[in-house]
Amino acid sequence: MFDIQPLDLSLLTLIRDKINQKTKPPGSLGRIEALAEQIALIQNKPKLSLNCPRLIVFAADHGIAEEGVSIAPSEVTNQMVLNFLAGGAAINCFSRANGIELRVVDAGTLTPATDSEALISKRLGNGTQNFSKQAAMTMDQVKLGLQYGAEVVNDVVHQGCEVIGFGEMGIGNTSSAAAIMAAITQLEVSDCVGRGTGIDDDSYQKKLSLVEQALELHKDSLTDPLQILACVGGFEIVQMVGAMLEAARKRVIILVDGFIATAAALVAQAINDNVADYMVFCHQSNERGHHLMLEHLQADPLLQLEMRLGEGTGAALALPLLRCAVSFYNDMASFADAGIEQV
Amino acid sequence: MFDIQPLDLSLLTLIRDKINQKTKPPGSLGRIEALAEQIALIQNKPKLSLNCPRLIVFAADHGIAEEGVSIAPSEVTNQMVLNFLAGGAAINCFSRANGIELRVVDAGTLTPATDSEALISKRLGNGTQNFSKQAAMTMDQVKLGLQYGAEVVNDVVHQGCEVIGFGEMGIGNTSSAAAIMAAITQLEVSDCVGRGTGIDDDSYQKKLSLVEQALELHKDSLTDPLQILACVGGFEIVQMVGAMLEAARKRVIILVDGFIATAAALVAQAINDNVADYMVFCHQSNERGHHLMLEHLQADPLLQLEMRLGEGTGAALALPLLRCAVSFYNDMASFADAGIEQV
Repeated sequence: MFDIQPLDLSLLTLIRDKINQKTKPPGSLGRIEALAEQIALIQNKPKLSLNCPRLIVFAADHGIAEEGVSIAPSEVTNQMVLNFLAGGAAINCFSRANGIELRVVDAGTLTPATDSEALISKRLGNGTQNFSKQAAMTMDQVKLGLQYGAEVVNDVVHQGCEVIGFGEMGIGNTSSAAAIMAAITQLEVSDCVGRGTGIDDDSYQKKLSLVEQALELHKDSLTDPLQILACVGGFEIVQMVGAMLEAARKRVIILVDGFIATAAALVAQAINDNVADYMVFCHQSNERGHHLMLEHLQADPLLQLEMRLGEGTGAALALPLLRCAVSFYNDMASFADAGIEQV
Repeated sequence: MFDIQPLDLSLLTLIRDKINQKTKPPGSLGRIEALAEQIALIQNKPKLSLNCPRLIVFAADHGIAEEGVSIAPSEVTNQMVLNFLAGGAAINCFSRANGIELRVVDAGTLTPATDSEALISKRLGNGTQNFSKQAAMTMDQVKLGLQYGAEVVNDVVHQGCEVIGFGEMGIGNTSSAAAIMAAITQLEVSDCVGRGTGIDDDSYQKKLSLVEQALELHKDSLTDPLQILACVGGFEIVQMVGAMLEAARKRVIILVDGFIATAAALVAQAINDNVADYMVFCHQSNERGHHLMLEHLQADPLLQLEMRLGEGTGAALALPLLRCAVSFYNDMASFADAGIEQV
């Protein structure tokens, strides 16, 4: 479905040689060197670049929210979309501070957001079905969602974008992400379900039971990634999966944010393993289960800042680290340039 | 000597109230919220700002380097100063990428750097004495160094600078920093001495013995912070101490980088405990001992990127996190602004 080229690891010797000529002790820039290596492998050009960085927030509503699995009602999804469009949310502030343009995708909220230049309407419906009682969506919706996500990426890539951060908003979506995680990793459901925005013990127990119930209900269908999306996914998650796969196909750098974006990454990797080569894991969330999800992906995120907000906030915070990696790779003097004896 | 006001913690209730009105679950921005709180306490104004950020690299040579405690000879200090002035070092790249202006201070290298607009000459001598055999410098040099550091800070503050990153360059300076650490923390010398730029086992044993020998030689004098600087300090370290104290006195945010900058922070705090209120610890270095130094200061740095270069690289990488903290504090919508029911 998505033809993604694996990175050409034979280039690594040349890339490392270039890095080791820089005026610093070998390896002394740690993970910034590893980041430069990954970007150099993705871009395979002499001067690396991060032109037109974009942060795409996919928003949708979830039928499961009617069970009271969040501290907030579903209306808040639409209210937060309006907040994104008005520039007032955390991700707006972080994106502005770091020179990133924000795009907001209505992937299927209960109330459609009013038209706005910054809004991309890719509605798959008025929220998903309650996945503790039935499939969240149809297979047609899954396929259309993957296509929508790919279209959104194609548009920004057409504008020259070389790095995309993926964020999300959707009341109830940690329940969906936890169910996806349990289905793919086969870990205990209690290791996958967390407190999301901050629910109390009673709500947590309810959320845990509902996810267990859903996995039992759908157990015969949870055999492939698209079926998992249909059974327990969300409209924003399925679009993120399509968007990540398309980004990798276009050799664009993928900035993976927190728990929900990582669930999408998990599904994308289950569809095509090569996608992982293009992913930079940005932040380890305080949401329970995120570190196990990252372990499953053998991913070690750049930042641990005890956040648990989503929206792409971790991705936005990580972009300057990529800029520094690119800057030193492109512009730092070699020992020969600087007339320094190499150690 | 330095009259530093402690932060007025009675303001914290108002600051937290403002943060908790923002459109996000309480606490969900984790350490970025804590950073906003600290900056708000330091600046005590309605709109926070990080105008004219500067990274100051203090460079000097060390007598101890003649013992072969580094992979590089002392000449490399001067060569790297020229590299900084030419814009080719890692810290130049990181500073450019993050919109930070760099200043280079010749605090006393063996070969004075040729004049350059970007160079600030504050020479305390042609490198320190070999501290394994005698005191590194005189008390007069310590006092002049503190004053020089304060002068450098005063100049940038006069230009409108509200946040300063502190970096250093000096072949042999991890030996000095390790000796300072051992003298102040009273930890085992073997917990304080690391491999710096990457010395082998033999050189490491030699470095360890030299630092132990120095601590024994000077043991009767290591009773106060200024004496410690005189016995085992470095010209760049003493100037960083003065610079940090003056920055705090001027209520300017101090970005503390890695092992050597943290050793300066340790001395500054031993001189005046209030200075710590103004410090943001930026990066946990891979240099042995840095995590113990940070523990001693009860500091939990923002980044762990496995770097061990110095130059202020960790400080430069952390500045965007402060920008995001300021941006959300200033500009993020409240629940009332956005018409969202507060959860």
